[in-house]
Amino acid sequence: MSLDELWLLTATCLVFLMQAGFLCLESGLVRTRNAELVAMKNFADWVVCTLLFFAIGFGLMFGASSGGAVGTSFFLLDGIEEGATDAPALFFLFQLAFAGTAATIVSGAIAGRTSLFAYLASTVVMTIVVYPLVGHWIWGGALLADNRPWLADLGFIDFAGSTVVHSTGAWFALAAIWQIGPRQGRFSASGEPRPFASHSFQMAALGALLLWIGWWGFNGGSTLALDETVGPIILNTNLAGAAAATVAMAHAIARQEGRDLGAKLIGGALGGLVAITANCHLASPAEAIAIGALAGWLHNVAYEGLIRLGLDDAVGAIAVHGACGVWGTLAVAFVLPEDAMTTSRLGHFGIQLLGCVACFAFAAGVGWLCFRTIRLTLGLRISPELEREGAFVDGQLNQSTADASDDALDPEVLRSMMSRD
Amino acid sequence: MSLDELWLLTATCLVFLMQAGFLCLESGLVRTRNAELVAMKNFADWVVCTLLFFAIGFGLMFGASSGGAVGTSFFLLDGIEEGATDAPALFFLFQLAFAGTAATIVSGAIAGRTSLFAYLASTVVMTIVVYPLVGHWIWGGALLADNRPWLADLGFIDFAGSTVVHSTGAWFALAAIWQIGPRQGRFSASGEPRPFASHSFQMAALGALLLWIGWWGFNGGSTLALDETVGPIILNTNLAGAAAATVAMAHAIARQEGRDLGAKLIGGALGGLVAITANCHLASPAEAIAIGALAGWLHNVAYEGLIRLGLDDAVGAIAVHGACGVWGTLAVAFVLPEDAMTTSRLGHFGIQLLGCVACFAFAAGVGWLCFRTIRLTLGLRISPELEREGAFVDGQLNQSTADASDDALDPEVLRSMMSRD
Amino acid sequence: MSLDELWLLTATCLVFLMQAGFLCLESGLVRTRNAELVAMKNFADWVVCTLLFFAIGFGLMFGASSGGAVGTSFFLLDGIEEGATDAPALFFLFQLAFAGTAATIVSGAIAGRTSLFAYLASTVVMTIVVYPLVGHWIWGGALLADNRPWLADLGFIDFAGSTVVHSTGAWFALAAIWQIGPRQGRFSASGEPRPFASHSFQMAALGALLLWIGWWGFNGGSTLALDETVGPIILNTNLAGAAAATVAMAHAIARQEGRDLGAKLIGGALGGLVAITANCHLASPAEAIAIGALAGWLHNVAYEGLIRLGLDDAVGAIAVHGACGVWGTLAVAFVLPEDAMTTSRLGHFGIQLLGCVACFAFAAGVGWLCFRTIRLTLGLRISPELEREGAFVDGQLNQSTADASDDALDPEVLRSMMSRD
Repeated sequence: MSLDELWLLTATCLVFLMQAGFLCLESGLVRTRNAELVAMKNFADWVVCTLLFFAIGFGLMFGASSGGAVGTSFFLLDGIEEGATDAPALFFLFQLAFAGTAATIVSGAIAGRTSLFAYLASTVVMTIVVYPLVGHWIWGGALLADNRPWLADLGFIDFAGSTVVHSTGAWFALAAIWQIGPRQGRFSASGEPRPFASHSFQMAALGALLLWIGWWGFNGGSTLALDETVGPIILNTNLAGAAAATVAMAHAIARQEGRDLGAKLIGGALGGLVAITANCHLASPAEAIAIGALAGWLHNVAYEGLIRLGLDDAVGAIAVHGACGVWGTLAVAFVLPEDAMTTSRLGHFGIQLLGCVACFAFAAGVGWLCFRTIRLTLGLRISPELEREGAFVDGQLNQSTADASDDALDPEVLRSMMSRD
Repeated sequence: MSLDELWLLTATCLVFLMQAGFLCLESGLVRTRNAELVAMKNFADWVVCTLLFFAIGFGLMFGASSGGAVGTSFFLLDGIEEGATDAPALFFLFQLAFAGTAATIVSGAIAGRTSLFAYLASTVVMTIVVYPLVGHWIWGGALLADNRPWLADLGFIDFAGSTVVHSTGAWFALAAIWQIGPRQGRFSASGEPRPFASHSFQMAALGALLLWIGWWGFNGGSTLALDETVGPIILNTNLAGAAAATVAMAHAIARQEGRDLGAKLIGGALGGLVAITANCHLASPAEAIAIGALAGWLHNVAYEGLIRLGLDDAVGAIAVHGACGVWGTLAVAFVLPEDAMTTSRLGHFGIQLLGCVACFAFAAGVGWLCFRTIRLTLGLRISPELEREGAFVDGQLNQSTADASDDALDPEVLRSMMSRD
Repeated sequence: MSLDELWLLTATCLVFLMQAGFLCLESGLVRTRNAELVAMKNFADWVVCTLLFFAIGFGLMFGASSGGAVGTSFFLLDGIEEGATDAPALFFLFQLAFAGTAATIVSGAIAGRTSLFAYLASTVVMTIVVYPLVGHWIWGGALLADNRPWLADLGFIDFAGSTVVHSTGAWFALAAIWQIGPRQGRFSASGEPRPFASHSFQMAALGALLLWIGWWGFNGGSTLALDETVGPIILNTNLAGAAAATVAMAHAIARQEGRDLGAKLIGGALGGLVAITANCHLASPAEAIAIGALAGWLHNVAYEGLIRLGLDDAVGAIAVHGACGVWGTLAVAFVLPEDAMTTSRLGHFGIQLLGCVACFAFAAGVGWLCFRTIRLTLGLRISPELEREGAFVDGQLNQSTADASDDALDPEVLRSMMSRD
């Protein structure tokens, strides 16, 4: 095998590490009573995604295109060796790690009131409908030159997935929290938000660092080759993350009374990383800093804005992945060289905007249907008692709560975790 | 140096990361009062293993064979450049990371009642007796073509160590928990198991994800080269882990009343990863899924079975590494191509079974002797008071217990941690 | 690109992982009430360092030398392609990861009483004054053959940064804790130290393992090429860390009444890793073990010595990075081959000693000025009330303290965190 393939494999390991990053980030930011269950969801969605993206999702995304809308081959990787890759299994694993990232974005937003079964059902939809179709529209030509995915064909550019992975995950999560509603007590009767304490900011910060490291593979590996663009791409990635974190922290202190400063520092950094993802191969370092800086501000505004709308995103995922994902996708139009455009700069901005709108409509629309259906069948929420007391795993009570003893919970509690609302 | 060597080095880093994974897994699954000490054991066994595998273990495993039973050269890596490797130090480091994995399996099983000194004494035996001898029998020909290790010579196949690393560690741990006995209060007077709460399921799940990532190097690096088998090997690894986790979760819910669901989800995943380890270079993706699925079921059955036998494995290590390790080793006989066998398929099954039995007998036998001897000399258990109150490190009381203050413990407590029972 | 560049990139990822390691180590070793803020500092210093090392620090370190004292070009990486590297962005990222390591050493030592703003102000000084100047003196010739940095020109050798990174960070931290003073209650009225409980030893041990893994890139990547020395360098790194941990643990038990045994085990290991850093390309394995063993003893002596002097290093960073960093730098004189010396062995020892003294004087001197200035302007310490109650992030109260509820703190608390003493 070649150097390119070793870099692809290394990058895949880094992106896989983002699963660990999300687990730490999400279980660190939610309340202690919810940390166990969100960790379990993070682990279980990787499991579900591994099997279903292999069987179905990958084929829908990269298989022979039906009308530029959906892939129709490569299920169970069957026939993948006909695609334009020398290392089909490695290419699949790299794409699997991306699919896993999109899937796991949802788990944090809905934490604290959603049942495990409802979440896993939605992961199935994410893995075999939402992510692969959006992915097909944009990246569906990666293996087969004959494929003409409709968004890519229009000229839409999303280098490493600000839209494909991040905002798709976020809009699906937005539909989820709309259907599920806020956690008990998150808003007062008059609609004022009541701050909830996070389980472990240090674990969340560890998660954010692991995600940042993973992003080197996410963006740097999306070249699918070890060429001279990899270094500049990773440099841009870092600069955007740092600029966003700086602006987010400064803005939170100067304009938002220091509310949730820690969450905004790390959320801002992640927002900058999301925003540079679509355009890291095009931006100059100065542009990367500017894109990141604006993402940091946007993150804070979206973070507070969602709360004002009464939407309860338990870990701020939609501000990070949704708002900053759209911004990064639109920013492509600003940094794209003239000679790479088939239309005017404004025209290309329109194409990027159209892509963002289409993906929003599709991801949020399918998400609405999905969570609505789950709500009417399986049930979405855990019982109110369980929500107040905390949903525990292993029949085990988390030790960190003040009144914890080593006594185990009755298995009934566990089962009720899965029952309908 | 070559691409192969860079992959070997990258894979070694991944396997080294499994030390961090085990630390998180084990300190997350034990009770809070035991989390500090088990973390200390995890760190210390890597230290002991690094020095002793360098000085002695590696030579016993890969040195010039005496009768196919034990190596007799390469101590302190002396003369290693005569072996069939272009990068002796890298080859050693890769093997060291494997030895460290075998050693650290034990620490979790015996958590909560074993003294630090007793554990470290057993790590010495693991590192310079049990692991290198079993390893020699199976992989002892890796550096010297003249070596004819007896099990390998029979045709026994264990690609990346379902037996060499995993079940060997588990059987040694089995002997340990038999000698040490259960934790106070783990079983009622009538023998009914009393569930213990785990310290932090989120930390355990983080550990399981780090282990999974590390497994890509564990299995994928065992080619010792970056050839076209690496991708399919890692693909199989992932599919088996995911299939096992799915089956383990479903089985725990459907048949085991949801008991210890979180531990079974992550333990099942790890069991699938263990099971595919011996045969990941041979299995098709469908076979990998089947091997994993059966491992997930087997894990749950073994997990509950050990409890019914009154054996107290504090983190479920024996179900993961022992039961699933044997299954993966036996499964070689089902997926081995006809033309790679020197005998019939049933005959080859017999060879695989013989290897499992031999390694069980040796690891459990030496383990029994080892822990019996420690029990009669150093002492195995911490004092009953310390076991009830928790064994702390640093003279520091863990903050997570409800009654913790910032007051430190008397150093006496620390010393008593090391005294005999 | 080449194999060398892929190794450099992989090594950079490993060094970046050390940021996660430091975060875990430091937030694990401090008291629970300080864990959140120290994690926030760890994250924020990486952000600050990323931007300022890019804009200014890198140029001062590697730019065209003015009198061997300071670089004067390459700001914002402008003109870097004229330097002796085929992959300027990757070279920058590798160096950035080193700069981030030096910066983050400080955060742990001063934990528990220093305000976030004061710390970030000092990070600026570290990133654009202290680290790049010391770095220039020793490594400033890396890109430009005409540069004749004064210490390197004398023959001073520091392969991967025992002095450049580690002791420089430690001496800056020493000046800091001298100016800031100990945490409330750390010493009794009569000067007796009062032990403080650490937040989570398991998290600290995880951090130490992540650091150890990162060190493979730190030392192994400092070749800047994948040549045959990489394996032996990493082997030496491992042996020194393990020898140091063994000696530190044994010495703590035999001579120091087992005080802070856990902290000494992991601190000793890190001390060994620091000590081998300067000389890992020269030492034989036996010498690596000797250098590590002495570092383990030295760590414990320095750890207790600082306490006896009434200096409150909250995580023992100065013993690890300062004492062991000097020892490793001096040890170069013992393991350097005769033919690589321009003077006698004693003469070369003098050169190494001079370098250590110069870097101490500069880092501690600038540190003194820096923290003195901050103390007189911004203020260094958080308020006494906040120090007693704990400095929290996110307006969120850490759940692990016994009296924690889910109630959030008033934002006033957050702002007071930043006010002057």
